[in-house]
Amino acid sequence: MTVTADSRQYALIPDWLITMQPVGAVLTGHAVVVSGDVIADILPVAQLAQRHPQVQRVALPDQVLLPGLINMHTHSAMTLLRGLADDLPLMTWLHDHIWPAEQRWLGEEYVRDGVALACLEYLRGGITCYNDSYFFPDVAAEVTRAAGMRAVMGAPVINFPTPWAQDSDGYFARAMALQQCCQDDALIAMSFAPHAPYSVSDADFVRMRDLAAEHDLRIHLHLLETSGEIADSKAQFGLAPLPRLQQLGLLNERLIAVHMTALADADMPLLAEAGVHVVHCPESNLKLASGFCPLWKLQQAGVNVTVGTDGAASNNDLDLLGELRTATLLAKGVSADPEAVPASQALAMITINAARALNLAHRIGSIETGKQADFCSIDLSEPDTQPMHEIFSHLVYATSRQQVRHVWVAGRQLLRDREPQTLDIERIRQSTKKWQQRIGTQQP
Amino acid sequence: MTVTADSRQYALIPDWLITMQPVGAVLTGHAVVVSGDVIADILPVAQLAQRHPQVQRVALPDQVLLPGLINMHTHSAMTLLRGLADDLPLMTWLHDHIWPAEQRWLGEEYVRDGVALACLEYLRGGITCYNDSYFFPDVAAEVTRAAGMRAVMGAPVINFPTPWAQDSDGYFARAMALQQCCQDDALIAMSFAPHAPYSVSDADFVRMRDLAAEHDLRIHLHLLETSGEIADSKAQFGLAPLPRLQQLGLLNERLIAVHMTALADADMPLLAEAGVHVVHCPESNLKLASGFCPLWKLQQAGVNVTVGTDGAASNNDLDLLGELRTATLLAKGVSADPEAVPASQALAMITINAARALNLAHRIGSIETGKQADFCSIDLSEPDTQPMHEIFSHLVYATSRQQVRHVWVAGRQLLRDREPQTLDIERIRQSTKKWQQRIGTQQP
Repeated sequence: MTVTADSRQYALIPDWLITMQPVGAVLTGHAVVVSGDVIADILPVAQLAQRHPQVQRVALPDQVLLPGLINMHTHSAMTLLRGLADDLPLMTWLHDHIWPAEQRWLGEEYVRDGVALACLEYLRGGITCYNDSYFFPDVAAEVTRAAGMRAVMGAPVINFPTPWAQDSDGYFARAMALQQCCQDDALIAMSFAPHAPYSVSDADFVRMRDLAAEHDLRIHLHLLETSGEIADSKAQFGLAPLPRLQQLGLLNERLIAVHMTALADADMPLLAEAGVHVVHCPESNLKLASGFCPLWKLQQAGVNVTVGTDGAASNNDLDLLGELRTATLLAKGVSADPEAVPASQALAMITINAARALNLAHRIGSIETGKQADFCSIDLSEPDTQPMHEIFSHLVYATSRQQVRHVWVAGRQLLRDREPQTLDIERIRQSTKKWQQRIGTQQP
Repeated sequence: MTVTADSRQYALIPDWLITMQPVGAVLTGHAVVVSGDVIADILPVAQLAQRHPQVQRVALPDQVLLPGLINMHTHSAMTLLRGLADDLPLMTWLHDHIWPAEQRWLGEEYVRDGVALACLEYLRGGITCYNDSYFFPDVAAEVTRAAGMRAVMGAPVINFPTPWAQDSDGYFARAMALQQCCQDDALIAMSFAPHAPYSVSDADFVRMRDLAAEHDLRIHLHLLETSGEIADSKAQFGLAPLPRLQQLGLLNERLIAVHMTALADADMPLLAEAGVHVVHCPESNLKLASGFCPLWKLQQAGVNVTVGTDGAASNNDLDLLGELRTATLLAKGVSADPEAVPASQALAMITINAARALNLAHRIGSIETGKQADFCSIDLSEPDTQPMHEIFSHLVYATSRQQVRHVWVAGRQLLRDREPQTLDIERIRQSTKKWQQRIGTQQP
């Protein structure tokens, strides 16, 4: 039995239910009743007939139902640059490969096609919501809304002209237009996405600080991606990035700080006290040899750490479940503690803790009555996840994203038996081929 | 068009052909002609009609054809313990969880069922050959031979009694019986698999050194898995493990040294000069927080480094393509060099260099006329590997093992459109469930 996209009253009955409320709990024999776009009830299957006699039952045999996964840092349109340049240092990669390609191709068509390809990959990997940082977020919002997915679109701020805006006033004008457009949107929220401390002025940071406070927005920033940033910042601004941001009033619960590989132990209490959220992108950091974000130390210091794939140009996939595995394994290695980030706790980083970071925990991130009906179901009957001794162990250490079977956002089924319901896979294939040819012919 | 298991004269025509001869080369428009169990010809498709007019053509659209992948370190039967105990230090994990479970269950039935489950996972992940270290290698050989796969079975040597043997003489007697049985086998070879320096006596090392030389066998050893091994070895034997093995005459091209996380820079020239082969198991090492094998430094010193998944009890999958990705990413991070282990070179670690380590490079590891017809084909048309700017980048950084489409060993097709041709998936499911129940009820 399957659910059509229009059906809005149904009960999902998985073999296992992981609500993330509390983190680490697993329910069996339970149903999740959806009404419209929200979770109406969570109850033992035995009580379903009495409490919801008419509801359509959707069995999910061999499957675990989870909150939809939340990718906390990505540049969706850059999926078109996947594999364009690898095995290079960050600055060579950016200056000699990525930025020239973007300079040539960046525009609405590029973003439209790139985001559609990314959304297809997200959905097939159980991702229902993503936190984006890229140009033309208005176009990205349109594509994502049409796909039925959820996102927080970062309005870029950077101190050089791009096809998106020419100067500071231009970036802020476009940001506030995006804010207007998103403020009542059911699926799309907006944030500021200043590129990095080295490419954003004090004045722009202060301006977005005040606007973010006024409109209750997050600030999504690449921060301390490499240790070189610290020396450069001292030379350019007379302060290391963290003290500079502190002085500018940016270190607070609105800040979503991405990468954070160049952290000192002494920085951690400051981050915890300020309520800064950290996004760990282990595979991108490894690939660019940027350093190691001290995930376990940050968690022990009380910092909310989440996980993102980064863009496909530096990862080179948008596989959040795989990224979580890398994050947990790497945390054990880096901290020399095999008990670091236990499997039962790890999933919180890509669900409820990510929702907290986005200021969306009242709506998404866990399966609770009254929250939005965003789920993914994962089939654990594959030989690769047999036998089944412990479900969290499997989800974190053994499951691949290809085992994602169904995805729902706001009650609407977007992936059914791995087939996208709202995205035209053939059209995406064609447009991706077109960009492969265009971009390929530009390569040296 | 597909090839039946009995058909033994056919030409595979993939979109891309990676022969690993030389490493880093990609051919398009080429065919690989198979005759019986060997590769009979590699030629441009345009010449196929003239040189092989009668041959059956097998198109592999959107696919790259590679040498079959070689998993250089695993404990196949332990797949039944996948996820049994996680997030623990090596010795706690071994002494309190893995060894008690083995003590209770180890036997022919356990090995038969566990190896069948592992072989299913290997084939679905493009693995055609594996280097095993476990008890009842005779049973494992039987299952693997029946599946049509290739393996090097390690005959265990360990200084305590197990259901496989009671004492030193017992272990050696069983090892030499295995050697007799395997010496003319087309698919199964044999090695010694001493458990670790801390669990094998000097006398046993010397005995296997001489037998290995006499019969031209490899010695497959866990070595320097943790830094604790060094202090313990000095206390127990008066020497660190490497000097001890050197003194015992074990450091030579027969030695396959697994893990090697506790290496000093000064050790590397010694290993290179001796021709010792190293197996890097990054995910197991991270998960158990054993330390970091210096892959890039070893390669630069001239050591042949290969990659293994380790057993599913400590990984928790047998995904060699994923393990290669982790190995390459981690090498960049650990060496702080994003140019370390470039994608174009990385695949050699799980193909031709692995074959060299096993002393099988004359038969497998690359696609060359006269070698065995062991291949896997990988479908790159999935959205997750689009667009296609660079094929090695995709294979190493973006492809998942679920994109493996077909597998052949010795000319025989073992996986067809992801369906195993020689393994009974339903029977494996049933036996795995049986063990899940048995082992589960034993858990504390």
